[in-house]
Amino acid sequence: MAPITGPLSGTDKATVAEALQGALVDLVDLSLVAKQAHWNVVGPHFRSIHLQLDELVAIAREHADTIAERAVALGVNPDGRSATVAGNTAIHQPENGWIEDGKVIATMTDILEGVGKRLRERIAATEEADPVTQDLLIAVAQDVEKQHWMFQAQR
Amino acid sequence: MAPITGPLSGTDKATVAEALQGALVDLVDLSLVAKQAHWNVVGPHFRSIHLQLDELVAIAREHADTIAERAVALGVNPDGRSATVAGNTAIHQPENGWIEDGKVIATMTDILEGVGKRLRERIAATEEADPVTQDLLIAVAQDVEKQHWMFQAQR
Amino acid sequence: MAPITGPLSGTDKATVAEALQGALVDLVDLSLVAKQAHWNVVGPHFRSIHLQLDELVAIAREHADTIAERAVALGVNPDGRSATVAGNTAIHQPENGWIEDGKVIATMTDILEGVGKRLRERIAATEEADPVTQDLLIAVAQDVEKQHWMFQAQR
Amino acid sequence: MAPITGPLSGTDKATVAEALQGALVDLVDLSLVAKQAHWNVVGPHFRSIHLQLDELVAIAREHADTIAERAVALGVNPDGRSATVAGNTAIHQPENGWIEDGKVIATMTDILEGVGKRLRERIAATEEADPVTQDLLIAVAQDVEKQHWMFQAQR
Amino acid sequence: MAPITGPLSGTDKATVAEALQGALVDLVDLSLVAKQAHWNVVGPHFRSIHLQLDELVAIAREHADTIAERAVALGVNPDGRSATVAGNTAIHQPENGWIEDGKVIATMTDILEGVGKRLRERIAATEEADPVTQDLLIAVAQDVEKQHWMFQAQR
Amino acid sequence: MAPITGPLSGTDKATVAEALQGALVDLVDLSLVAKQAHWNVVGPHFRSIHLQLDELVAIAREHADTIAERAVALGVNPDGRSATVAGNTAIHQPENGWIEDGKVIATMTDILEGVGKRLRERIAATEEADPVTQDLLIAVAQDVEKQHWMFQAQR
Amino acid sequence: MAPITGPLSGTDKATVAEALQGALVDLVDLSLVAKQAHWNVVGPHFRSIHLQLDELVAIAREHADTIAERAVALGVNPDGRSATVAGNTAIHQPENGWIEDGKVIATMTDILEGVGKRLRERIAATEEADPVTQDLLIAVAQDVEKQHWMFQAQR
Amino acid sequence: MAPITGPLSGTDKATVAEALQGALVDLVDLSLVAKQAHWNVVGPHFRSIHLQLDELVAIAREHADTIAERAVALGVNPDGRSATVAGNTAIHQPENGWIEDGKVIATMTDILEGVGKRLRERIAATEEADPVTQDLLIAVAQDVEKQHWMFQAQR
Amino acid sequence: MAPITGPLSGTDKATVAEALQGALVDLVDLSLVAKQAHWNVVGPHFRSIHLQLDELVAIAREHADTIAERAVALGVNPDGRSATVAGNTAIHQPENGWIEDGKVIATMTDILEGVGKRLRERIAATEEADPVTQDLLIAVAQDVEKQHWMFQAQR
Amino acid sequence: MAPITGPLSGTDKATVAEALQGALVDLVDLSLVAKQAHWNVVGPHFRSIHLQLDELVAIAREHADTIAERAVALGVNPDGRSATVAGNTAIHQPENGWIEDGKVIATMTDILEGVGKRLRERIAATEEADPVTQDLLIAVAQDVEKQHWMFQAQR
Amino acid sequence: MAPITGPLSGTDKATVAEALQGALVDLVDLSLVAKQAHWNVVGPHFRSIHLQLDELVAIAREHADTIAERAVALGVNPDGRSATVAGNTAIHQPENGWIEDGKVIATMTDILEGVGKRLRERIAATEEADPVTQDLLIAVAQDVEKQHWMFQAQR
Amino acid sequence: MAPITGPLSGTDKATVAEALQGALVDLVDLSLVAKQAHWNVVGPHFRSIHLQLDELVAIAREHADTIAERAVALGVNPDGRSATVAGNTAIHQPENGWIEDGKVIATMTDILEGVGKRLRERIAATEEADPVTQDLLIAVAQDVEKQHWMFQAQR
Repeated sequence: MAPITGPLSGTDKATVAEALQGALVDLVDLSLVAKQAHWNVVGPHFRSIHLQLDELVAIAREHADTIAERAVALGVNPDGRSATVAGNTAIHQPENGWIEDGKVIATMTDILEGVGKRLRERIAATEEADPVTQDLLIAVAQDVEKQHWMFQAQR
Repeated sequence: MAPITGPLSGTDKATVAEALQGALVDLVDLSLVAKQAHWNVVGPHFRSIHLQLDELVAIAREHADTIAERAVALGVNPDGRSATVAGNTAIHQPENGWIEDGKVIATMTDILEGVGKRLRERIAATEEADPVTQDLLIAVAQDVEKQHWMFQAQR
Repeated sequence: MAPITGPLSGTDKATVAEALQGALVDLVDLSLVAKQAHWNVVGPHFRSIHLQLDELVAIAREHADTIAERAVALGVNPDGRSATVAGNTAIHQPENGWIEDGKVIATMTDILEGVGKRLRERIAATEEADPVTQDLLIAVAQDVEKQHWMFQAQR
Repeated sequence: MAPITGPLSGTDKATVAEALQGALVDLVDLSLVAKQAHWNVVGPHFRSIHLQLDELVAIAREHADTIAERAVALGVNPDGRSATVAGNTAIHQPENGWIEDGKVIATMTDILEGVGKRLRERIAATEEADPVTQDLLIAVAQDVEKQHWMFQAQR
Repeated sequence: MAPITGPLSGTDKATVAEALQGALVDLVDLSLVAKQAHWNVVGPHFRSIHLQLDELVAIAREHADTIAERAVALGVNPDGRSATVAGNTAIHQPENGWIEDGKVIATMTDILEGVGKRLRERIAATEEADPVTQDLLIAVAQDVEKQHWMFQAQR
Repeated sequence: MAPITGPLSGTDKATVAEALQGALVDLVDLSLVAKQAHWNVVGPHFRSIHLQLDELVAIAREHADTIAERAVALGVNPDGRSATVAGNTAIHQPENGWIEDGKVIATMTDILEGVGKRLRERIAATEEADPVTQDLLIAVAQDVEKQHWMFQAQR
Repeated sequence: MAPITGPLSGTDKATVAEALQGALVDLVDLSLVAKQAHWNVVGPHFRSIHLQLDELVAIAREHADTIAERAVALGVNPDGRSATVAGNTAIHQPENGWIEDGKVIATMTDILEGVGKRLRERIAATEEADPVTQDLLIAVAQDVEKQHWMFQAQR
Repeated sequence: MAPITGPLSGTDKATVAEALQGALVDLVDLSLVAKQAHWNVVGPHFRSIHLQLDELVAIAREHADTIAERAVALGVNPDGRSATVAGNTAIHQPENGWIEDGKVIATMTDILEGVGKRLRERIAATEEADPVTQDLLIAVAQDVEKQHWMFQAQR
Repeated sequence: MAPITGPLSGTDKATVAEALQGALVDLVDLSLVAKQAHWNVVGPHFRSIHLQLDELVAIAREHADTIAERAVALGVNPDGRSATVAGNTAIHQPENGWIEDGKVIATMTDILEGVGKRLRERIAATEEADPVTQDLLIAVAQDVEKQHWMFQAQR
Repeated sequence: MAPITGPLSGTDKATVAEALQGALVDLVDLSLVAKQAHWNVVGPHFRSIHLQLDELVAIAREHADTIAERAVALGVNPDGRSATVAGNTAIHQPENGWIEDGKVIATMTDILEGVGKRLRERIAATEEADPVTQDLLIAVAQDVEKQHWMFQAQR
Repeated sequence: MAPITGPLSGTDKATVAEALQGALVDLVDLSLVAKQAHWNVVGPHFRSIHLQLDELVAIAREHADTIAERAVALGVNPDGRSATVAGNTAIHQPENGWIEDGKVIATMTDILEGVGKRLRERIAATEEADPVTQDLLIAVAQDVEKQHWMFQAQR
Repeated sequence: MAPITGPLSGTDKATVAEALQGALVDLVDLSLVAKQAHWNVVGPHFRSIHLQLDELVAIAREHADTIAERAVALGVNPDGRSATVAGNTAIHQPENGWIEDGKVIATMTDILEGVGKRLRERIAATEEADPVTQDLLIAVAQDVEKQHWMFQAQR
């Protein structure tokens, strides 16, 4: 018997499980990519972007934890292992090595746009299945779209 | 020209770069594996282990950042992307799904023993090349070996 | 004339009033039952459960206050008096006296499952009548279902 | 065998147990009645009384916890369940619905006078049986009599 | 080309833009009117109202910022300039000069009722167009309706 | 009879009242214009200016409150309503819409220069009439001239 | 030889010494009278006035300390002993016993008006003799006149 | 009718009233004398004593407030006006002017011994009349006797 | 001459000195034994007990300091040197080496029961001699008996 | 063109520039000399003086920053380089090596007297030229004269 | 089998175990001796030394915990029981009773010199065996030698 | 006799003394040069560099204090007087007057590279003589090399 049972079952549970696991991969990888840029960025805007990326890392980590714990509360196993993230991420990976500050801005803008779009699909997908999960995804989207603006504004 | 130049060059730089990148992969993956167990653990000791794992995550994240920023200060690019971590980690990965609390204790004890051993090799390797880096690795080892005891003590 | 008038009237107001009063009784009694167990629990896991129950008490009290103040803002009188709670609660009451730790885990898991179910019915009931109230009930459900997992995981 | 044994036995234990259980019922119900008034009060002095009542709730909750944990330390089971409180409380219950601010002042003054009187009886009763318990009851009485003044002063 | 692009376009974007700009004008003017009363109020209840109005100012300012930044994240320019606010506000302006405390209570109750009503219209208007914006407007409405009660209760 | 009487009368009171009301309009509008730029700024220096403007908003709001409360203490009614501010401000208003970061720097430098000049006139005007008011205006001028430098330095 | 010598001597020192000692007596007695009312006030506005008086006590105590330490820095001995304060105070003393809240408001308004007037005379008297002392007295006057408004506003 | 009635009456009330009023005069004058020495002390140990005296002032003020509020809670009017304190204090007053550090130590040691003795008499006097008051006086005595040691130890 | 003289003399002083020195030895050794177990505990409940023991250490240290300083205030020399503690302790010492968690629970339960019993004897012994000292011992007993329950509850 | 232009020009600007640069050299060197004594002081009063000097360092550093930033705000370049400070300081330099505590007191008293005198000249010099600068210098003088007393009192 | 295994074995483990146990005895006894002096010191410098000793106690306790937990992490049992400390300490024990302040300074200087010397021997002894332990001992030595200076400077 | 004696003597002491004094001059001058740039920087990156320089000032001040206090603990007199710093600094001094932001970045990068190199020489020089001092210098080098990267990254 599954050790944890939650309020959902059947299709609803499967739909929500897929949305949460997808969001988890997006958020864990967002935190890793943002850290990668936080370390390797160079250019006249280095300091401002270096600090901004750490705020993004903190946001991504906090939402990842909330999303994963929501999955567990529904009896669904979240998978945030490195191989799972590396194998399933839809985030375009930056090259290794130094990254010019303008390039960081452009890259993060694209990445956040993508994460935001996938969140909106998950918000739509979970509306009927579980309003509690949907509410959490809306909160993630609000922060991601705000970060998207703040990187975009620097182009 | 490399945008960042540090005090080391030649063999010393290569030796230190390898030690730091190795430690970074260990620490990033340690944070991911500990989170994975933080979410999926079940059993009578759930709450205590759930909290302890989050302390370990915090330690791993903080040291990972220090180690990566040390690399950059030496003109070396740290690589903490998910594919790099997944492809190079020496940490034995847990299965996906629920993990009994006793299993978590055993797994984390083994993982921390391995991370600690590799840190000791890196401490030895960097002694001549860069005492500043060595000092940081010693600090990481102290925390990792302390965590190793605290998980081991619960067997 | 009623001293406080809010934005709702008629059926909508009645529907929402019923949902809020029901949630209030559930949350006040949840805080009292959790305190009862916090005091009377015994067993090898005493300390961990003793602390966990106080976190649950804090969550129940905070949500009870928000729910009751939402009622007032709509011109509805919340009733959290002891006789009302004792007379209307759907929470199965523990026996008086010492409670073994395993019994506490089982009891709280059942209680939280019941509270969570009734919250989901109230979320459905208030969707049309008042999205503001529904949003508050969703936030309560998120915390209750999370607590449900964390007790259940210790079985 | 009783899981918890304390320093008292026989008549002393019975005397102290009765005093502590009586104080617990008073304090839990005081917190519930004060919350009830906190939510339902109306009138020109609404805001000041609304805030004052929450201070009283915090005092009542903190003392209730200390009193109940004192009982457990003596091997006595505290009973703070809603039915016990509702069935044993000596506090005159307010009507449901809006309460004018002057009425709140008068009601709380009366309630606090009663709680204070019963505390003084318990202080006398426990003097010989257990000076440690008596010391805690004196601390409760000090706060209750201070609150009594502060409500009374507003008449 | 617009410097900021967000996830919405066409009618949805226009609908949401109108709702956000309307809410912004309401919230900025609410903060100015509440400050005006905070300074000019007189009467026996002066101190309590003076403090309460500053809490309302803080709430209005915080929500105004969130609402305006939501607009920017959607590629819409918020306009909070004094002439825009003065020219578009639907809030009935108090006379200049001293305001009796009872008059402040009555005025703020009416103003908050109006702001709350317009927020409910915007919540309905944005439901289909953007659930993220709707969620923010629901949070504003919750606070505004709570403040409405707290002023109303003092009549 | 005026509800509030202060230590000044006749010409002194009129002089000081005019200086305070003028400073109030400047400071309230400075806070609104700075927020407007905080939201609508774009360009490579976005983040740094976005944060700097919020510090300016905080300074302007705090001084506005002190200045307005000084007026009340003298028995003078401050007027910070949106129509009064919009109708009397000497601050050149920015266009609606996106503002390039260089444009923000230039605009805020000009605005702060103007506010600073008018403050110096008010400092001179109040020297004889009320040294207490003059002291407050000196404190405002110190902060405004410091901000003027910090924006100007970025040109 | 005097143990402490400061920058002033002759008439300047005597003038400043007198102003500081006068202000000290005013401020110490203001703190005592405000505490007296803080304890003995009764009436429907009890709680608000009780809290407000403690803020006044804190202000009076802090300024008294600054004023006395300014005297010492000039080589002048401040005298804040009870007999000195009782024998030299110009503050009209309240009767012993309960004080109705309206009476407190009226009394404190009068007292603060008097303290403010004497401060203005001392500000004038010290302008030539010592601008540093004058600056401190201006700061005291600002707070005293603000408190005067806040009590006056409640009549 | 007296506005505040407490749990005591007759001889008990009179006994307790006398003890509380006596302690209040001691504590208020202790705070004034300690401040006087805090300002006027000179000598090689100036700084240490200057700081120590401010700790004593804080202790005296806090206990004075508790004692006075206890009186009010019993329906007794505390009297802490300067003339009452000056006229009734049993504390030997220091001369005006500079006080050598050794003299301060000796003076404060004597004063604290006296205050301590009178507190012990009041503890004895109130034992039967009111254990709640006695408990407060015991707490004051503990702090006063500790301060007595700490000054005495410096002789 | 003794450097410190306090309010007691003769038999009273001797009685209280003996009680305080006995309590001091108990509390210092309790802190050392709890630290010993904090370090050497092993077993499935390691983490919970490890943390709980540190709370006990903090409690023992704080009370030891209060008790020792009370002795000094009475002119009695506390003796907390290692040889004195080792030679006079009544606490049964644990073996050196690893201690199983269940053994820790049993050992600490016994130790705390003993410390509590001796405290009760000291409370009785000091009642007549010094109510101030008795009050401190009552506070120690309250914490010790609470800790006794919390260890006992885990058996 | 000068990058920063402020409100002053001509003689006023030159006068204020000279006063600010003079104060800056005094304050930077005061911080260096106080640190020198903080490290090298010996004698029975070591600890008290060691701590006091660090408070003086903090005061000197904070005022130095304010003074230098005031200069920049006026378009004047502050010069706090070591050679400028060493070449222009009017502070008598202590010998290198250990400094007896009495010598530290005497030296710091003289230094603070000198700094205070020069500040008073600068306060006089800037009165007409710039009241904002004068106000800052008055604040510095207040702290410096207070420190002068506190060192002097220890002779 | 030993419950805890660490990275060392054989001679290295024995060497490090001896160094850590020796340091633990030194640090626990240092904390007890410093507390003993903290309580029994008398003389004109009482307060300064009393405070300084508590800082030393805090440092000794914190390092003792780190050193003991390092031992456990290596699979070595730390022994901090009172008999072990009393029987093995190399710290010269002060007589019981009052200690003049000059005597305290001399005693603590000698004790800290001894502890420092033994730490330097342990730093040398562990260099090859375990750089992690050596690093911890270096940190202890830094603090102990700093404390040695600060007591020595007061002779 | 030297007032302070430490664990070193002869050549070791001389070697360490030279290293510490050299590091002290570097760090004090680094703090002065960084403040100079903090005040006089202009250019589009003004704000970011202005803030970054203050972080560098804080780091330099904190390490300077630790280094100087290490010298004293060894019985060596640190010399941080302005003339000593100005006469011995190896840091290339910036011109007086405005400094373009790019110039600041280049200058600070060069300065930090030089300070870092000299620290590495001192780390090598002190390895045999005093591992405690070496450990402190390693910690300084880590921060200096990190700052070097962060300025360099902005070129």
